[in-house]
Amino acid sequence: MRKTLYAGLTPLITLGLLMGCVSTDTEQSVATIQDSQADVLKYVDPLIGTGGHGHTFPGALVPFGMVQLSPDNPSKGWDWTSGYHYSDDTLLGFSHTHLSGTGVGDMLDILVMPFRGDYSQRDKDEKGRIFTSYSHDDEVAEAGYYALTLPEEQVKAELTATTRTGVHRYSFAGQQDAQLLLDLGYAQNYDKALMTFIRVEDEKTISGYRISGGWAKYQPLYFVARFDQPFRHQLYQQGEPVEGVHLQAEQGQVVLNFGQPEGEKVVEAKVALSYVSINGARDNLQAEVANLDFDGARAKAKQAWQQQLVKFQVEDENNEAKTKFYTALYHSFIAPQVFHDVNGGYFGADGSAHSDPGYGRYSLFSLWDTFRALHPLLTISDPQRVDDMIYSMLGFYDEVGLLPSWELMGNETDVMIGYHAVPVIVDAYLKGLTTVDPQRLFAAVKTSAMQNRFGIDLYREYGYIPSELEVEAVSKTLEYAFDDWAIAQLAKALGKDDEYDYFMGRSQSYRTLFDASTGFMRGKDKQGDWVTPFNPVYVEHRNTDYTEANAWQYTFFVPHEVEGLIELFGSEQNFIAKLDELFTTSSEMEGDVSPDISGLIGQYAHGNEPVHHVAYLYAFTDQKWKGEARIKEIRDTMYQAQPDGLAGNDDVGQMSAWYVFSALGFYPVNPVGGDYILGTPQFDEVLIQLGNGNSLRVRKENDRGDNYVDKVYLNGQPLEAQSISHSQLLKGGELLFRFAD
Amino acid sequence: MRKTLYAGLTPLITLGLLMGCVSTDTEQSVATIQDSQADVLKYVDPLIGTGGHGHTFPGALVPFGMVQLSPDNPSKGWDWTSGYHYSDDTLLGFSHTHLSGTGVGDMLDILVMPFRGDYSQRDKDEKGRIFTSYSHDDEVAEAGYYALTLPEEQVKAELTATTRTGVHRYSFAGQQDAQLLLDLGYAQNYDKALMTFIRVEDEKTISGYRISGGWAKYQPLYFVARFDQPFRHQLYQQGEPVEGVHLQAEQGQVVLNFGQPEGEKVVEAKVALSYVSINGARDNLQAEVANLDFDGARAKAKQAWQQQLVKFQVEDENNEAKTKFYTALYHSFIAPQVFHDVNGGYFGADGSAHSDPGYGRYSLFSLWDTFRALHPLLTISDPQRVDDMIYSMLGFYDEVGLLPSWELMGNETDVMIGYHAVPVIVDAYLKGLTTVDPQRLFAAVKTSAMQNRFGIDLYREYGYIPSELEVEAVSKTLEYAFDDWAIAQLAKALGKDDEYDYFMGRSQSYRTLFDASTGFMRGKDKQGDWVTPFNPVYVEHRNTDYTEANAWQYTFFVPHEVEGLIELFGSEQNFIAKLDELFTTSSEMEGDVSPDISGLIGQYAHGNEPVHHVAYLYAFTDQKWKGEARIKEIRDTMYQAQPDGLAGNDDVGQMSAWYVFSALGFYPVNPVGGDYILGTPQFDEVLIQLGNGNSLRVRKENDRGDNYVDKVYLNGQPLEAQSISHSQLLKGGELLFRFAD
Repeated sequence: MRKTLYAGLTPLITLGLLMGCVSTDTEQSVATIQDSQADVLKYVDPLIGTGGHGHTFPGALVPFGMVQLSPDNPSKGWDWTSGYHYSDDTLLGFSHTHLSGTGVGDMLDILVMPFRGDYSQRDKDEKGRIFTSYSHDDEVAEAGYYALTLPEEQVKAELTATTRTGVHRYSFAGQQDAQLLLDLGYAQNYDKALMTFIRVEDEKTISGYRISGGWAKYQPLYFVARFDQPFRHQLYQQGEPVEGVHLQAEQGQVVLNFGQPEGEKVVEAKVALSYVSINGARDNLQAEVANLDFDGARAKAKQAWQQQLVKFQVEDENNEAKTKFYTALYHSFIAPQVFHDVNGGYFGADGSAHSDPGYGRYSLFSLWDTFRALHPLLTISDPQRVDDMIYSMLGFYDEVGLLPSWELMGNETDVMIGYHAVPVIVDAYLKGLTTVDPQRLFAAVKTSAMQNRFGIDLYREYGYIPSELEVEAVSKTLEYAFDDWAIAQLAKALGKDDEYDYFMGRSQSYRTLFDASTGFMRGKDKQGDWVTPFNPVYVEHRNTDYTEANAWQYTFFVPHEVEGLIELFGSEQNFIAKLDELFTTSSEMEGDVSPDISGLIGQYAHGNEPVHHVAYLYAFTDQKWKGEARIKEIRDTMYQAQPDGLAGNDDVGQMSAWYVFSALGFYPVNPVGGDYILGTPQFDEVLIQLGNGNSLRVRKENDRGDNYVDKVYLNGQPLEAQSISHSQLLKGGELLFRFAD
Repeated sequence: MRKTLYAGLTPLITLGLLMGCVSTDTEQSVATIQDSQADVLKYVDPLIGTGGHGHTFPGALVPFGMVQLSPDNPSKGWDWTSGYHYSDDTLLGFSHTHLSGTGVGDMLDILVMPFRGDYSQRDKDEKGRIFTSYSHDDEVAEAGYYALTLPEEQVKAELTATTRTGVHRYSFAGQQDAQLLLDLGYAQNYDKALMTFIRVEDEKTISGYRISGGWAKYQPLYFVARFDQPFRHQLYQQGEPVEGVHLQAEQGQVVLNFGQPEGEKVVEAKVALSYVSINGARDNLQAEVANLDFDGARAKAKQAWQQQLVKFQVEDENNEAKTKFYTALYHSFIAPQVFHDVNGGYFGADGSAHSDPGYGRYSLFSLWDTFRALHPLLTISDPQRVDDMIYSMLGFYDEVGLLPSWELMGNETDVMIGYHAVPVIVDAYLKGLTTVDPQRLFAAVKTSAMQNRFGIDLYREYGYIPSELEVEAVSKTLEYAFDDWAIAQLAKALGKDDEYDYFMGRSQSYRTLFDASTGFMRGKDKQGDWVTPFNPVYVEHRNTDYTEANAWQYTFFVPHEVEGLIELFGSEQNFIAKLDELFTTSSEMEGDVSPDISGLIGQYAHGNEPVHHVAYLYAFTDQKWKGEARIKEIRDTMYQAQPDGLAGNDDVGQMSAWYVFSALGFYPVNPVGGDYILGTPQFDEVLIQLGNGNSLRVRKENDRGDNYVDKVYLNGQPLEAQSISHSQLLKGGELLFRFAD
């Protein structure tokens, strides 16, 4: 069944109305016609985040593309998880798949390395890989385009991509034979090739597969590579030459020799991927690039990014801020990524190839990170993709019996906590963005909450997770409570009153772990006694009551019921004081500090996700201005327009999505249901193209830099609450932030 | 495109006519109506070959079935390649896939072990596998049924199968909980689980996958297991319990607890396989066993074997010989096996799932063995399957660019020499049994002969393979020459005169390596000088001029031109003398004798394939009776109706197919084109149902045991030649061997 609006679905996109403060007049969009020629791409710098702990990659892709074609360095540790780190100057080649901003390394499929000279005589590493040095002076990274000149190889490498195809251009100079090494055994970090296959189909075509394990425990990948020049080939297995036209081996490689340049030799290659089959890759190649050369593909990639990014059109003089903003948008639109072939086929979570299910399958759901701001951002920027993502998660559920938690190429990594597919699904439902049968949605989200893993059974039994029975008990209890609140909202919308009551009850569990004596969320044992000793600055990676954090960083995680959290502190005053202290206390921690906990302001750690909503909590008090100050500080100090420009892992776009919202002037503190809490806009004006044909102009007036927002007007009407609803946004018009005189 | 007779195809089924000695009258079948009730199954003993070096397995399957459900012992070496050896008395469980008679071990997917007691307390091996002891007294092996009582576990296990589903029945007695261990990590011999997945779908259903490497380098396998009783489950990873309803792990296991018996507890399980997907396995289960219980499945398996074996209806008093004959037939009909799902989907040699290609995909082509007699036998017994097998080989060619050599579950093992898909394809074409476009066939067979691997380039360059440049140079030259002769026949049939001449030229290469001074096929160096020292009884596994053999065992390998071979010896006299010496010389060998070289009569080694046609070479001389004597001797001494009853590896049915032909009284010395050389029939009468509705009754008269065939009559007409053609066979009627007075 192809998606059709499910009979009886009543999308609850009117939650915002419940606040009672919104004009119910039908607003007309006041947007100007979208200026698709606006020069947004010059503000994208893919190198941002490639230094420090950002873990992004600089290579070429299109929005949400299956292919991320990017240079790889030999890994020297954790900061090379994307395959590349700006501090490096050694190249292994260009591989076709990369993770953006993760804390674990995987992918890096199908390495292509241009080189000169005799492969058998070259210096190689123990896996038969060639390396060469380069300088960032010879590097160009743009949205959809990457170039690097390799002086030792006398070749300029250029990369671009379509959704499922990497397109390469190698311009060889000099006298020696122009050659490419295709290395299917190549792997780094957690990744490991289990079996590879290379077939030389003809003098211009290679196909094959690379089956790998690693973080994604079972990941088949297929490819067809077509070259515009004929080659002679030599297969290699672990460095040893192998005769013939095909090779099945754990470490299969092939060297393609395009002969001696006459002057310059330019070789173009199109490498189409598929997670389903070689024929799928062939279909992808045919559909996407059969009639494109490198320049044509590059122009299409540029156009794709232009169309994607111009949805947010900034008017401002501050070019550095625009670079930070558009690069944050760029990094927000990398994943979840297209996982299906042009023919609709996809690789399922049941380890099986599936034919077209009637929706577009997406993969790479880093949900612990992205449920917070990335997915809400997509409901604004890409509402038409949201339904496919929901169908993809439900497909995963059908295939393995459980929604994804941290899904990677059809595999569950279970690397983080919570059942955060739930808020993403419920948010999409409440915003009217999914056509999946809501009863099916409910069955799926409930199954997540009723499983017996990761302390969820204990949580049901005790009303919280006793610390001695399960690691990260406080973080899990808090996150489960939030997810349960989301389930309750879906139950309510579907008239399931008993379920609503049950899950609303569970959503209150955060109260149980609030220790009023210390003012922290704190672990309890199964007798209900507080865990001692208690040290709110103590950390130890994945081995305490808190997940990649300490008590400071988790105490504020009640996004669904901030008023309830404030209540626990006894007064708004106390709550504000605690927030103030979070940002002003010493940043020193005790224990074994993981590099995940970075981007510190006091004990606020912007480099990791649990605090991402915290600066906005001031908006629930009468001292919102304090939050604005922190938001500005975070925007200014945690994001820089330089390679070492992100305060921590970009985490598949969540760090960047925080920036996008915070520059626009609002943020989904509770990412379910569409209430965005007001902050402080960065730019004079941003025109947002909403997917429904409307547009919203976000403006500010009277910002002198040291003053704060006084009043916010939606189409001339002052907003009474410090929030704006998704349905208000969707009507478009003008959102004016008037700063205090 | 579903198979349709290719336009312009003129099947050359009339080769036999070229002998000029055949009545061209249209013969009417004189067969009686097939007696489907004839009791042939009681003569099948699946235990034959499970001892010694036979390498068969005793478990349950249907003819050519995807599933071979059979007991496994812990491997103690080479003789356990099938998973089971009769000398053993320790059981690890019952797995669903087994190789019959190979020299390399693989498969053994999805182990099921019934047991009692607490799994965590049981003695286990380092992989968490349970073992229990048994006695052959408690074992029953029949065609399509296997039973074993396990006293320590107080359970009787019974196994049967449909084409794609293993069906189990476990009758538990005693007081302890009735349990099954499903072990997906279980592997032995070359096999290795790369990743497994187990999902508990509901209280009666498990599904999952097992991705393995090993001899078949990349072999995904999917399953759905449905039980007739509800269970409680516990997942395990490398012996450690894991919570939840699914598990992805290298060594995934699940224990299913069916509770305490009240008296007897009988649990039935249906485990459907697919090489494509879990949904494919589900489709297979639904189509094949949804409405069958164990007894129903057992009855169907019995019926399937009955229909398959009653195609050869023996009338004779010698029950032991009938057991040898019907068991040989049984072992001949195990592979190539059905590889596609009921929906037509299959796993291709490109490592990709494919949807229904319009033919039934087969796998497990042990071609170096089976081109000799097994495939010719199938052209008689199962002509309707032959076309699917040819399509399967051509599909393999399309997927990887080369025909299979020794194909295992979509993988090329390249374990043996030659390009023996060629004779199988050409034989099928000449017999009119394939509808594949003959131009496509020709392109495929020619590609095999024109590759540059395994010395084929040297063979083209020198006209033979120089010994110092390639191992097994003599064997390869001889086998390539034969395969080339087959290509020439196809070229001729297609009017490709130049190609015919070219490949006929290559087919003469055997002459180059005949050393008249020693009377052996002997290695030459690239200068054309004989390799010295030369020792015709020297052997060394895969490291001499001969493949799993010595000069004695390869000298007679010119099946396509026996007259030419005789000529090389100078006279028929000399040739006969050499044959005599082969059988009468000492059996002692020098060097490092591999157990492959077994079943010795002199230096004749019936336990391996190169000599299989040799006893029939006497029929090309005036001393055919000597061959008859040897055939009888081989039938009597190399085949016994007991576990240690095969003189060597059954080699996926080739050893058995030799017996079938040799008991019928003729053998395809040249397995291409359909000339069967006459031998000596074993039985008073065999009625062969031919696939075309005709039947052939093979009778003998006047066999006193120590006399020889005098004259052979086809429908009353004496045969002039010592052969009968396939087209003669197909007409049916009576073939009478009249022994000399």
